Amino acid sequence: MVDITSLLQTAKTDAFLISQFYNVLYLTGFEPLSPHEREAYLLLINGKKIIITDGRYAGEKHSDDSELYILKPKERAVEAIGRICSENNVKILGCEMDDLKWGEQIQLEKTGMELLPFARILSPYRSIKTDEELFAIKQACHIGDQVLKDITPYIHPEQSEKEIAWLLEKMVREGYGAQIAFDPIVAVDAHAANPHYNTKQGEGVIKDGSILLIDFGVKSHNYSSDITRMVGVGGVSDEIKNTYAKLLEVQKKTVAYVNTAAELKSIDTFCRNELQKNNLPNFSHSTGHGIGLEVHEAPRVNIISSDIKKVGQVFTIEPGIYIPDKWGMRIEDTITVSEEGVEVLTRFPKALVLV
Amino acid sequence: MVDITSLLQTAKTDAFLISQFYNVLYLTGFEPLSPHEREAYLLLINGKKIIITDGRYAGEKHSDDSELYILKPKERAVEAIGRICSENNVKILGCEMDDLKWGEQIQLEKTGMELLPFARILSPYRSIKTDEELFAIKQACHIGDQVLKDITPYIHPEQSEKEIAWLLEKMVREGYGAQIAFDPIVAVDAHAANPHYNTKQGEGVIKDGSILLIDFGVKSHNYSSDITRMVGVGGVSDEIKNTYAKLLEVQKKTVAYVNTAAELKSIDTFCRNELQKNNLPNFSHSTGHGIGLEVHEAPRVNIISSDIKKVGQVFTIEPGIYIPDKWGMRIEDTITVSEEGVEVLTRFPKALVLV
Repeated sequence: MVDITSLLQTAKTDAFLISQFYNVLYLTGFEPLSPHEREAYLLLINGKKIIITDGRYAGEKHSDDSELYILKPKERAVEAIGRICSENNVKILGCEMDDLKWGEQIQLEKTGMELLPFARILSPYRSIKTDEELFAIKQACHIGDQVLKDITPYIHPEQSEKEIAWLLEKMVREGYGAQIAFDPIVAVDAHAANPHYNTKQGEGVIKDGSILLIDFGVKSHNYSSDITRMVGVGGVSDEIKNTYAKLLEVQKKTVAYVNTAAELKSIDTFCRNELQKNNLPNFSHSTGHGIGLEVHEAPRVNIISSDIKKVGQVFTIEPGIYIPDKWGMRIEDTITVSEEGVEVLTRFPKALVLV
Repeated sequence: MVDITSLLQTAKTDAFLISQFYNVLYLTGFEPLSPHEREAYLLLINGKKIIITDGRYAGEKHSDDSELYILKPKERAVEAIGRICSENNVKILGCEMDDLKWGEQIQLEKTGMELLPFARILSPYRSIKTDEELFAIKQACHIGDQVLKDITPYIHPEQSEKEIAWLLEKMVREGYGAQIAFDPIVAVDAHAANPHYNTKQGEGVIKDGSILLIDFGVKSHNYSSDITRMVGVGGVSDEIKNTYAKLLEVQKKTVAYVNTAAELKSIDTFCRNELQKNNLPNFSHSTGHGIGLEVHEAPRVNIISSDIKKVGQVFTIEPGIYIPDKWGMRIEDTITVSEEGVEVLTRFPKALVLV
């Protein structure tokens, strides 16, 4: 867990203001209603964790090592932060420049403190999962596996991408009491050639002979999974079957390569080299991404990553092949680095699903 | 609509950078995947609207008066913005300080421009709805009315708040092809005494004699509605019925008062005075809020509002009575200010629903 004192020493600040929703949740277990409106700040000060929020959350649960400061009616959060800092003789306040708004920074500086900007201050901590976190992620992965198994018999021609996406969501919520981690990508044929296809805005329908990309995640006890599998409906061409078999080999080899990798960017390089060896095209997205409280978090698994492989990391491995205007395919597992080596948390079989 | 030239003249800047998701959508119709990740910026420059985004959105639709600038692989958006501004001899760039991150501001200033902070720059425009916008909001309100009618027969004792919230969402999506605008608040008895009750985290179950608060919104063609109604299940006490009748009178009077109001804050004052006249307790939230592309937007309808009533505004009127540890009730309509006076867009009857 995070040692506040050493965090402040490293940052060389008197106190630190955490504003990012998931960082507040991570450090205190406190969870306001919306990740996207500013409903709470966390002030790390004098060895204390002070959650600054309003009266709506007075009864909300939070960790024993944190305390709530409830704003008075009309009291603004920046004023309260300024006052508490002043009372504690704080001259320099560290802030999350990748989350704090410019307007908030201007308001806070008016209280007379010097603000110091930091980026991804908690990533080194959050990227190493505790046993409890790993348990929650495994559970989310397990539900994802089950839902994919549950939905397969319902996939058929004439069905729309939207219908399948909605059915997935219903199964996650009704069947397992979990949440969908992000809007599922369900993309048929040429739509799947766009790695970030927007199913909600699309109008795709399955035909006999279609291949279908299903990329979805489950959120359970605040932690997320991420999986992509391909489904062939009816007669699938040999070209697709053969290419899929090659992609599958590349994906498996890349997962195995994690055991020998030291820097995570080498995983990205390895994967693209393997595709090239097979005369397969490169893909435009990262080979993988860290996952946990957020669907995209540290570590990075791409060419600009400076992250080192460490035990406790959880990330995806998801190479794809995209042929514009024809089709696309991707195979994605959520994995973790354990003392014994790579452990693949996604258990759903990786062969092309045929219905 | 927004005249870019006069906006820049008012702001006294050479160009303006719009970063807020809904403001980009409002000005260009361009809609990336996530409102919460930074996937696009809009640069208002030399009478042009330049959307800066990445290759994923190359084919995405946008208004005829806007153009796409697609980032090259590895090109960062702030670099592209800095370069385009420099090519156009921009010395001062206006920015949305209520949306831009501090880190983005730091990066942008490194390109050599002076940045000027503005707050709510588009609120005066967005708060006045066009006919098309009003049509979409009316449609969202209509679906909300229908769903509430559809769900009433399904409400019964032993049912949980979560089940009703989920049923609402399913009806909105399956029955009307629309989206839920925010996580519905379904709160039984004492839970309803918390105006921002979190149904997802709660465990409430309906009993015979319960009253149930249902607060939900529908999003249709990007525009949202918002409605709150109360349902009495089985034998409801006379105390509740009588209090409800008084609240209903206050709500109706407040809606009617909008016709005579000049400043919107006077609506808030009027509503609270009416409650006091009836010896009813005050409530802790605003009397209403503007609604449109966002569920909470300009104008403000509370005591700190400086907004003036204008034709074309759309906002809610939602007084409530909250008795801690006992029960809570709220009645909320979405209304618009037309040339002829107040028009109530929420048509579902306001009487206590009895099942």
